[in-house]
Amino acid sequence: MPQYRLLLEYDGTEYHGWQLQPGERTLQGELEAALATVLRHPVRLAAAGRTDAGVHAFGQVATFRTDQPFEPRVLRKSLNALTPPDLAVREVAPVPDAFDARRHALARVYEYRLWTQPWRSAFWHRFTWHVPRPLDLRAMRLAASALAGRHDFSAFRAADCEAESPIREVFHSGLTEAEGLCVYRVEANAFLKHMVRAIVGTLVEVGVGALAADAVGGILASRDRRRAGATAPPHGLVLVAVKYAGC
Amino acid sequence: MPQYRLLLEYDGTEYHGWQLQPGERTLQGELEAALATVLRHPVRLAAAGRTDAGVHAFGQVATFRTDQPFEPRVLRKSLNALTPPDLAVREVAPVPDAFDARRHALARVYEYRLWTQPWRSAFWHRFTWHVPRPLDLRAMRLAASALAGRHDFSAFRAADCEAESPIREVFHSGLTEAEGLCVYRVEANAFLKHMVRAIVGTLVEVGVGALAADAVGGILASRDRRRAGATAPPHGLVLVAVKYAGC
Repeated sequence: MPQYRLLLEYDGTEYHGWQLQPGERTLQGELEAALATVLRHPVRLAAAGRTDAGVHAFGQVATFRTDQPFEPRVLRKSLNALTPPDLAVREVAPVPDAFDARRHALARVYEYRLWTQPWRSAFWHRFTWHVPRPLDLRAMRLAASALAGRHDFSAFRAADCEAESPIREVFHSGLTEAEGLCVYRVEANAFLKHMVRAIVGTLVEVGVGALAADAVGGILASRDRRRAGATAPPHGLVLVAVKYAGC
Repeated sequence: MPQYRLLLEYDGTEYHGWQLQPGERTLQGELEAALATVLRHPVRLAAAGRTDAGVHAFGQVATFRTDQPFEPRVLRKSLNALTPPDLAVREVAPVPDAFDARRHALARVYEYRLWTQPWRSAFWHRFTWHVPRPLDLRAMRLAASALAGRHDFSAFRAADCEAESPIREVFHSGLTEAEGLCVYRVEANAFLKHMVRAIVGTLVEVGVGALAADAVGGILASRDRRRAGATAPPHGLVLVAVKYAGC
């Protein structure tokens, strides 16, 4: 059956994550229901990555198969009419039969937003973790840069992570800040479970002075999860993009 | 009684505007209730401007009086603990007895956000008007610049506007655009009722080619509301700042 790719944007606040769960509002569930309505047959979606409950996406990628002919722009319009306002289909496009959104991804880009003003933000509260104290950005940048490269990330991995290997290659790990909004951006070939959130929890410890910036390299080398910081809450995290060969 | 100033940020989506209305959720109502709880006496707030239902604010200013002594930072913290997450108190500060948030304002800055991608944005949908077609930014900028200066803005005024004079002075009127998010920013000494939204409705007509850019000067000179565009919806509008002498 011909295969298609969806490029998806969502505010994950009101979802129990990507993955289908009976009785829960999930992104896969909402989208599969909308696709089944339009295409008039059951549809199974395969995503590049399963985002956790509360995590957002600007560029999630998911594929499905159908024999129904359709115009991609028309399908996009139909899906956006059937899905709630916190979920949007940015693009619909045909892909080769062998394309696998998860296995063929060369890189994933995530951003994590921190709001550091003393007041909580009325605009950003759905998309930021509120850390109401000044952060030492210079120290955090130094710590973040220690994570770039090919490493064993066991120190930043959830206890129930099922990945076979803890080795990942981080291509970029850096911070920007403007008017109290601090954005950590990280790009890697792939991520372990809760890896970005464990990194952010550790960077915040560096930012508030509880941990020295140059200690992060040692934590990474120790491969000991107990030495890194707490897992940051999900709602600051956004899957920004998934990269493939040729795009 | 000593007077204080609040600097306020709010997502207006779930409010029936600033002004107190019995039985409705309003910003004035939420804040006066929180102030009364903390200060243990009824409190009346006076705002720089009454934002309409659905309109947001990043820098609304409102004043109140109390004999109760308090530490401004502590009051801010108490108010932010008592108010919902879509409303934030950025600052609390003492002001002179004669200070009038509305009459002493030298300028107000508003922004209006348009989302022009074909898909509705899962992140920006609360803060943007979705106009899913390419807009001619160059024509819109030309039209926007025709509004700068001291003019009779009757052509951009709601039928039930109660202002005595329709003369206003616009200090800045311009547009920026990035990745489908188009922001109209306008600064004036004051605004007539629905003035920014009527301007934006007219600029969008220019942007889609329904109106020539150089027609906007003629519409302004005509002082005829029927010649300008429709009033844009409230949820794209944000009161960004209110400016006073010395700050």
